[in-house]
Amino acid sequence: MSGNTFGTLFRITTWGESHGKGIGVVIDGCPSGLDLDETVIQAFLDRRRPGGSSASTHRREPDQAAILSGVFDGKTTGTPIAIMIANKDADSSAYASLADIYRPGHGDISYQAKYGIRDWRGGGRASARETAARVAAGAVAGLVLDRMGIRVTSWTRELGGVRAMLTDMDEIFRNPFGCPDRDAAARMAARVEEVRKRGDSIGGIVEILATGVPAGLGEPVFDKLDADMAKALMGIGAVKGVEIGDGFDAASRLGSENNDPITPEGFTSNHAGGILAGISNGDDLKIRVAVKPIPSISISQQTINTRQEPVALSIKGRHDIAAIPRINPVCEAMVRIVLADHILRQQSAVR
Amino acid sequence: MSGNTFGTLFRITTWGESHGKGIGVVIDGCPSGLDLDETVIQAFLDRRRPGGSSASTHRREPDQAAILSGVFDGKTTGTPIAIMIANKDADSSAYASLADIYRPGHGDISYQAKYGIRDWRGGGRASARETAARVAAGAVAGLVLDRMGIRVTSWTRELGGVRAMLTDMDEIFRNPFGCPDRDAAARMAARVEEVRKRGDSIGGIVEILATGVPAGLGEPVFDKLDADMAKALMGIGAVKGVEIGDGFDAASRLGSENNDPITPEGFTSNHAGGILAGISNGDDLKIRVAVKPIPSISISQQTINTRQEPVALSIKGRHDIAAIPRINPVCEAMVRIVLADHILRQQSAVR
Amino acid sequence: MSGNTFGTLFRITTWGESHGKGIGVVIDGCPSGLDLDETVIQAFLDRRRPGGSSASTHRREPDQAAILSGVFDGKTTGTPIAIMIANKDADSSAYASLADIYRPGHGDISYQAKYGIRDWRGGGRASARETAARVAAGAVAGLVLDRMGIRVTSWTRELGGVRAMLTDMDEIFRNPFGCPDRDAAARMAARVEEVRKRGDSIGGIVEILATGVPAGLGEPVFDKLDADMAKALMGIGAVKGVEIGDGFDAASRLGSENNDPITPEGFTSNHAGGILAGISNGDDLKIRVAVKPIPSISISQQTINTRQEPVALSIKGRHDIAAIPRINPVCEAMVRIVLADHILRQQSAVR
Amino acid sequence: MSGNTFGTLFRITTWGESHGKGIGVVIDGCPSGLDLDETVIQAFLDRRRPGGSSASTHRREPDQAAILSGVFDGKTTGTPIAIMIANKDADSSAYASLADIYRPGHGDISYQAKYGIRDWRGGGRASARETAARVAAGAVAGLVLDRMGIRVTSWTRELGGVRAMLTDMDEIFRNPFGCPDRDAAARMAARVEEVRKRGDSIGGIVEILATGVPAGLGEPVFDKLDADMAKALMGIGAVKGVEIGDGFDAASRLGSENNDPITPEGFTSNHAGGILAGISNGDDLKIRVAVKPIPSISISQQTINTRQEPVALSIKGRHDIAAIPRINPVCEAMVRIVLADHILRQQSAVR
Repeated sequence: MSGNTFGTLFRITTWGESHGKGIGVVIDGCPSGLDLDETVIQAFLDRRRPGGSSASTHRREPDQAAILSGVFDGKTTGTPIAIMIANKDADSSAYASLADIYRPGHGDISYQAKYGIRDWRGGGRASARETAARVAAGAVAGLVLDRMGIRVTSWTRELGGVRAMLTDMDEIFRNPFGCPDRDAAARMAARVEEVRKRGDSIGGIVEILATGVPAGLGEPVFDKLDADMAKALMGIGAVKGVEIGDGFDAASRLGSENNDPITPEGFTSNHAGGILAGISNGDDLKIRVAVKPIPSISISQQTINTRQEPVALSIKGRHDIAAIPRINPVCEAMVRIVLADHILRQQSAVR
Repeated sequence: MSGNTFGTLFRITTWGESHGKGIGVVIDGCPSGLDLDETVIQAFLDRRRPGGSSASTHRREPDQAAILSGVFDGKTTGTPIAIMIANKDADSSAYASLADIYRPGHGDISYQAKYGIRDWRGGGRASARETAARVAAGAVAGLVLDRMGIRVTSWTRELGGVRAMLTDMDEIFRNPFGCPDRDAAARMAARVEEVRKRGDSIGGIVEILATGVPAGLGEPVFDKLDADMAKALMGIGAVKGVEIGDGFDAASRLGSENNDPITPEGFTSNHAGGILAGISNGDDLKIRVAVKPIPSISISQQTINTRQEPVALSIKGRHDIAAIPRINPVCEAMVRIVLADHILRQQSAVR
Repeated sequence: MSGNTFGTLFRITTWGESHGKGIGVVIDGCPSGLDLDETVIQAFLDRRRPGGSSASTHRREPDQAAILSGVFDGKTTGTPIAIMIANKDADSSAYASLADIYRPGHGDISYQAKYGIRDWRGGGRASARETAARVAAGAVAGLVLDRMGIRVTSWTRELGGVRAMLTDMDEIFRNPFGCPDRDAAARMAARVEEVRKRGDSIGGIVEILATGVPAGLGEPVFDKLDADMAKALMGIGAVKGVEIGDGFDAASRLGSENNDPITPEGFTSNHAGGILAGISNGDDLKIRVAVKPIPSISISQQTINTRQEPVALSIKGRHDIAAIPRINPVCEAMVRIVLADHILRQQSAVR
Repeated sequence: MSGNTFGTLFRITTWGESHGKGIGVVIDGCPSGLDLDETVIQAFLDRRRPGGSSASTHRREPDQAAILSGVFDGKTTGTPIAIMIANKDADSSAYASLADIYRPGHGDISYQAKYGIRDWRGGGRASARETAARVAAGAVAGLVLDRMGIRVTSWTRELGGVRAMLTDMDEIFRNPFGCPDRDAAARMAARVEEVRKRGDSIGGIVEILATGVPAGLGEPVFDKLDADMAKALMGIGAVKGVEIGDGFDAASRLGSENNDPITPEGFTSNHAGGILAGISNGDDLKIRVAVKPIPSISISQQTINTRQEPVALSIKGRHDIAAIPRINPVCEAMVRIVLADHILRQQSAVR
């Protein structure tokens, strides 16, 4: 059992269900003396809000974070920081008809197998709503990174088969898809509309970049920086693949192409994605994740109910068409949390 | 610090360097009463041996496992199982010239940044030799899986750009590349020879399949089964990418295509790779990893020494051309270890 | 850092300060399917309330627990159970004068040394109020014990130098000191009054008994059942000593006196306190803890302020005269939590 | 399961049985750059040797430590330090007659209940021989303490009912009982002889002192410094009680007596034992442990065999009469390990 805690020294424990009283996180191990109030967290939560993008629902979901402990006079005290985000408008009635049906692509059937009981309201613990707690924790982790000048950003590299080029990184904050390619963003919008009309959904690829990462982070041989990143990101609901640096492209390359030459001024390329033998090498971290299509679609699907009878299911109501771009700040948050943890771990080394 | 322990209940701690006295593993949490002797472990270690494949070195490396504790009268006692594999023919002289040079693509530079000291003999702790301890531990984990009828296999899906079809799974055990496609295996052999002559190296893709996995394994929300698999596999030296089920292919698919329909007889497809919301759904686990080319090549490379001076480096001597197929049993071992751990974790649930 | 999480499989993480928004606990790893609502928790919290005993303050502190997650339709779901107890009447004004003074016997000076900052309102994180979260978690742990017929009770063995005999165990629930000796309870009441008038405080000894504990709980060699009990109990604020079975008395005994003879019907004595080699032997667990006097006294004390200047301190206002008997249910709670954890750990063994 | 790992950042995992191939420890998290070779460890192991004291056996047991990994050019590398102590003269024949008998006071019956199997040779994993691995690990932990000027010593305060005064601390290294009181040491010798003749055994009390401990070590609220000390020490085989500072004596004292006054020059007394609210306060750590009599005695005892039949057992052969003084360096080792761990943990705090 267990499994709702992540990290060794910067350690987060999350709780909550989609339609329960709220969701929350306890952050244990945050250094003392950092400036923190709700606005720091809110800025990140707002990026995860629906409505900004036409790929996302218009459901009202204010997501207001309350800090319940660990902060005194505007500074972290070194004791656990508890943050809660109350569920305000959870209306479970739409889910009542799903109480005894296993939705394809969702965790309904696996949760039932595991626990013999499941909170079917809004997906319960398996809801993407859970990730709001991660975003809140990531905001706090960011305070640890800020001190060192580390910056984490993310963007949509692909959505519904539309691939973006890295034409203008400022574009990320201008279009609703977090896409660094204005033309691609326009095609993504069209793709989303087309899919929405069909009652279907789409997936995509998110890229995360961390700059300013010092060399030396990561613990061989199991808690490698890339291994912990892989766990952190694969553990986000819709993620089905994780790549470090060139990832799967490296598989078809020659060693002479893939090795990053070293000069007194640094590496001349970054196929490795900033990690060698599981330890950061001082170059930028480059990570890519594959996001599957949202499983809730209105197109009719074949499934069964809890009595093992066949059922045709069409999921009504407003749902996100894609986890992207709402998942992007979640990916960033997990990367920040992993980095904060490994920064603290490395601090424990000899000085 | 730390980082050399993996698992929660089936927990392994490894130690050792490439050219030290040996490498080893302590397995804590293995259930009592399982039949175990050295032959069980040796069978797996032999699959990791060099020489079988022309992609691997001919260096003699017998890798004989000795069980030092935790077994009595041929059965596990529930106490820690310590296994050691002595380093028999470690000749560090070939590495002396590399003592002050950072090899591109290796962890030399990142280890130095982290620890301020590194054992340069044969790559020290960062050597692939470390994985022998994982294979030994995986053999023991297999005993837990055997009781439940779980079977883990792996094969080479791609090597040096040569892609295999799944034409004959028995072929895996017949050709030196662990390749389920006889024709592809022949082309892989040719590719390896060609690359070897050039003094270069190649990467590839390994696929792992686990059958007989019961539904209900995996702990939301961070210790998901796929998250732990991602960590376990990304933590293997040469791995740069991990996919569950269709992985990155899912990113460009529609929800209606990607969801696996459910019938009273089970799922009618397995795009999910046997995991829903981080918990096994009773279907086969399907995992894919990207393996980068071996970084040690005899082609001259640009690098620096520990005095930050530019150096042209050509690594002589016999090296593996590819981590595949020696890495395949390592991947299997990590999958077995994760499964054994989650089986024990699930046993702690209500009954 | 970290340190606010306890347990391996039945794992609790607590948060909160005395005069912050509240205190809470996240319980991860509680089996699914157990009946749980707030009344289960409230019953235990009420035993920790002040006012019942003249040794305790009359401060109003309702301590109402709210379950925020992990329960659905009155049953635990296997997901994290978050419980919060809001701080209702926290008036920090009385503490304002203590903001820059280190109270003797309190953690003020050590917290300041550790974190460089401290929440001085009501002792902040170091307040005994923190233990309400433990009591709530212990109530949930009790559900795991109930299934197995394990029962945990505690009583006051000594208070302010007044020693109780085990004359009538029902008396524990009748007198305000949780004392199994009516006469001793009367003398304790007199002692408390006398000490209160002097503005001083007293300590005592609590004994905890667990019956129905199956043999086989505890993990050698570090996570022994007695080792985990010692950690759990010594980690309660005022506890300065822990004994298992005969404890320090065993030090002056002969082996022939101290060994518990074994018969086909069981042990004929229980000097060991139910634990052999760190594993429960099927007999009752017997544990004893030493509780120091409450450090807040109105008698003038010598101390310093944060500017390192000498100060004479007399702490005014209503304070408990003794941690006993409010600490008794906290001790029970920790014993329940340790037992629940080890029950789940033992379930992961071979079956 | 599990339980053979101790510590968070300075983390040790031990393995081995009394009559197996050896015992060992893997130390993960030791900082890099510390001077280490076998002689450092051997010095501590030699203090644990039998024969020095008439309270101990004359059995030959050389206990030679071999460092298998983690050290390069005489310095720690930051990678796991594996240490093995081979079992040289394990003769299990004397134990053959005990294979089906549960020895009173030993873990035979509880191990059997837990695992359904036990290595009966020499007590297997439950043998005191296991502590040699702790002593080896403690020697390495000492390197971390040395850098900070922390010194840990221990002495015998009581043996077989003979109580020592702290008359001359140098005496500790002069008499075979590690006793700071020459006269008491002589009476202890007489007591030991008397008990040996009767075929019985004795217990005692060990005190441990750590000087130079900086303020700020210990993590509230569960991983308090005293809580971790209690776990570390109670987890040693024969220990039945642990006290911090005045321990049980504090229970009968007034707050005005027990609080340590604070002056600009420091505390004027040390009833607290150097720990306030679980965090070191800069004063000396004072800890006391109760050690039960050795359970193996030649006096006939009542017990049962594995067929649940009554048996009269008289254990022949040379056995230690008391765990003291061989247990003293084990206690020191555990204190050093806890301190090293908390030093590294505190280093991860803000700087």
